[in-house]
Amino acid sequence: MSSTAGQVIRCKAAIAWEAGRPLSIEEVEVAPPQANEVRVKILFTSLCHTDVYFWEAKGQNPLFPRIYGHEAAGIVESVGEGVADLAPGDKVLPVFTGECKECAHCKSAESNMCSLLRINTDRGVMLSDGQSRFTAKGQPIYHFLGTSTFSEYSVMHVGSVAKINPSAPLDKVCVLSCGISTGLGATLNVAKPPKGSSVAVFGLGAVGLAAAEGARISGASRIIGVDVNTKRFEEAKKFGCTEFVNPKDHNKPVQEVIAEMTDGGVDRSVECTGNIDAMISAFECVHDGWGVAVLVGVPTKDAVFKTHPVNLLNERTLKGTFFGNYKPRSGLPSVVEKYMNKELEVEKFITHEVAFSDINKAFDYMLKGEGLRCIIRMEG
Amino acid sequence: MSSTAGQVIRCKAAIAWEAGRPLSIEEVEVAPPQANEVRVKILFTSLCHTDVYFWEAKGQNPLFPRIYGHEAAGIVESVGEGVADLAPGDKVLPVFTGECKECAHCKSAESNMCSLLRINTDRGVMLSDGQSRFTAKGQPIYHFLGTSTFSEYSVMHVGSVAKINPSAPLDKVCVLSCGISTGLGATLNVAKPPKGSSVAVFGLGAVGLAAAEGARISGASRIIGVDVNTKRFEEAKKFGCTEFVNPKDHNKPVQEVIAEMTDGGVDRSVECTGNIDAMISAFECVHDGWGVAVLVGVPTKDAVFKTHPVNLLNERTLKGTFFGNYKPRSGLPSVVEKYMNKELEVEKFITHEVAFSDINKAFDYMLKGEGLRCIIRMEG
Ligand SMILES: NC(=O)c1ccc[n+]([C@@H]2O[C@H](COP(=O)([O-])OP(=O)(O)OC[C@H]3O[C@@H](n4cnc5c(N)ncnc54)[C@H](O)[C@@H]3O)[C@@H](O)[C@H]2O)c1
Ligand SMILES: NC(=O)c1ccc[n+]([C@@H]2O[C@H](COP(=O)([O-])OP(=O)(O)OC[C@H]3O[C@@H](n4cnc5c(N)ncnc54)[C@H](O)[C@@H]3O)[C@@H](O)[C@H]2O)c1
Ligand SMILES: [Zn+2]
Ligand SMILES: [Zn+2]
Ligand SMILES: [Zn+2]
Ligand SMILES: [Zn+2]
Repeated sequence: MSSTAGQVIRCKAAIAWEAGRPLSIEEVEVAPPQANEVRVKILFTSLCHTDVYFWEAKGQNPLFPRIYGHEAAGIVESVGEGVADLAPGDKVLPVFTGECKECAHCKSAESNMCSLLRINTDRGVMLSDGQSRFTAKGQPIYHFLGTSTFSEYSVMHVGSVAKINPSAPLDKVCVLSCGISTGLGATLNVAKPPKGSSVAVFGLGAVGLAAAEGARISGASRIIGVDVNTKRFEEAKKFGCTEFVNPKDHNKPVQEVIAEMTDGGVDRSVECTGNIDAMISAFECVHDGWGVAVLVGVPTKDAVFKTHPVNLLNERTLKGTFFGNYKPRSGLPSVVEKYMNKELEVEKFITHEVAFSDINKAFDYMLKGEGLRCIIRMEG
Repeated sequence: MSSTAGQVIRCKAAIAWEAGRPLSIEEVEVAPPQANEVRVKILFTSLCHTDVYFWEAKGQNPLFPRIYGHEAAGIVESVGEGVADLAPGDKVLPVFTGECKECAHCKSAESNMCSLLRINTDRGVMLSDGQSRFTAKGQPIYHFLGTSTFSEYSVMHVGSVAKINPSAPLDKVCVLSCGISTGLGATLNVAKPPKGSSVAVFGLGAVGLAAAEGARISGASRIIGVDVNTKRFEEAKKFGCTEFVNPKDHNKPVQEVIAEMTDGGVDRSVECTGNIDAMISAFECVHDGWGVAVLVGVPTKDAVFKTHPVNLLNERTLKGTFFGNYKPRSGLPSVVEKYMNKELEVEKFITHEVAFSDINKAFDYMLKGEGLRCIIRMEG
């Protein structure tokens, strides 16, 4: 039992007081975990677009002051009542969506969309009592995605915490708790390209590159990267992309360009852009008879997916995935294992590293579109 | 070797001389099969909507005079050069779409959309030489779907003929070569409902009832029949439907009605209407996380399938199927086996029977929407 168990912990956190304003590192008080909660000492965290979107709060409900952060790795400091699966000292990845293990989704082998702990971007408090566990300058500070990892300590529902291999290097595997597992799982768990097949990946951000990495791991023989930003192509080679198409270079729809390159269409496609036209192209570029298209990108509210139904009747499959179909607690640890076995290469996703005190630099890199993932070291 | 092998056979056929005009039974000359062709003595045939659509030729390219018919059973009379898989005396089902066993689709385990012999409604001649094998009143008569079963003898490509169990009763299994296998396969091969699951079937014609029969065989615990025609509901009970919804009885979209009946949506749905709104409803009524929707109905040319992409991202799967994903030669015989094993009940699809000389009565039944399948006996 750590000496801090049951006590309020005073530590540093990066607080967003207002939309779009640089985070400010301050002392926060972190209350002890309640029933079915754990308090985690965060060691490494990284920045994802979703943090930036909600911090900018253009269109989203503004909820401030708030502690962002949801890609991270840490160690359990203490656990609340009724927590049997985790103990102090366990190495864990916080996850932005949970697994209660009791609802219909958790009991289904196919779904990871837990009814209780499914992602909720509007809730800034703990489920059990509707309160925040963070206080700064005498006022409660909102949580984000149930994780709030831009703090040296954070309290989470036990269902939002995955226990991982104790020998995993946390400064690497911290990037596996969101976008990278999403892209990887979209390919490995949903598209499932057979060995030797052709795969098109739309959008070569971190998520799309992870989808390409999944295709590489699956032994795909052709991995066609599609992006409107040609700058992404050089980096994408490291992730197994063998060919590139920029839709802007052609005066016909990119699905037709791909069909011509592949004698009728690719075997699998994975869409990681959030752009509705890319979603439609990703579907229509798969081969009739057996092609499978998987949508990953988060579209705008009023987007409409449109296609002629004959494209479906000709035996194409269209699927979407959330978090790469990984169940956070029971599936995510296997991604860490893939890294430990050297199947999955994580290092190439990590392009920057900063100290916690420089967390705003990570925001700058992302806003400028520089690199893929910036690791933020909480200590030293 | 039959005494007719290599000879022109004179026999009776029902010729459509003009769009929409009753068929006329006349003597035709049926040329011997060429290389990779077989000549089949048709014993029983039945009528499907597709025959009627192309006979009415409203919108379709008119091609007359023509011999329709594609649901049938018969016996091989003689085979052309190079035919190794079939011999005179074999019991067979002609199929409107073929399996060459050599193209990419035939070699794929997943597809049944043979590049060479895929359904072609516009071609009225044999593939090899672009000629018809039928002559009447001195003029060539066009083929239909490569089968033309409204004739006592017909010539077909070997790839369009499935060899079946020699003990199968042809007056029953003749209905298995089109719509019934399509609906059955849509459920058994594509939707694959787990035992105990809930299935919605949109459209309770022969195809939809066969889809319901597939759900019954799979052990689905709830089979919800959806049709705008309430008259279909009584018959549908025989095919395992446990509940019914008429979209016209509700003032909200039928997908919402079904979601309320099933705590969030059905596990599987199969659309057998051809109506685009029903296709969209069939997709949107499946449960998030694990629901699978299968489209079967043939839509109009300008139909557009529209949905919000979040319905996909919430882990629903959308698929279409052609001929229930059965490969005509290598898969269809297994449907006959299901009937022989008493798993599949075929008799309940057969509601009428007429002599060949009364074939126009079969058209009347279908045009009036009476019954499901009318067997046409070629002999006596
Ligand atoms: N479901 C999840 O759990 C989950 C998790 C993380 C991210 N996402 C979503 O995945 C998507 C990708 O995330 P990311 O972090 O890699 O984003 P990113 O912005 O880094 O990358 C997106 C890429 O798509 C490209 N693009 C945009 N429009 C395009 C088009 N029409 N055709 C081709 N390329 C196009 C952009 O140029 C960019 O390179 C986003 O929509 C994000 O919201 C989902
Ligand atoms: N792919 C294939 O191989 C194949 C083979 C045969 C038939 N089909 C297609 O399958 C479909 C069904 O064939 P069938 O012979 O059973 O047709 P059918 O006309 O006998 O039955 C269709 C049923 O759908 C109902 N319906 C129409 N619109 C509806 C709506 N909006 N909501 C609910 N119900 C609605 C009708 O009332 C009717 O009962 C057709 O589109 C046909 O072209 C495909
Ligand atoms: Zn759950
Ligand atoms: Zn994220
Ligand atoms: Zn073929
Ligand atoms: Zn038919």
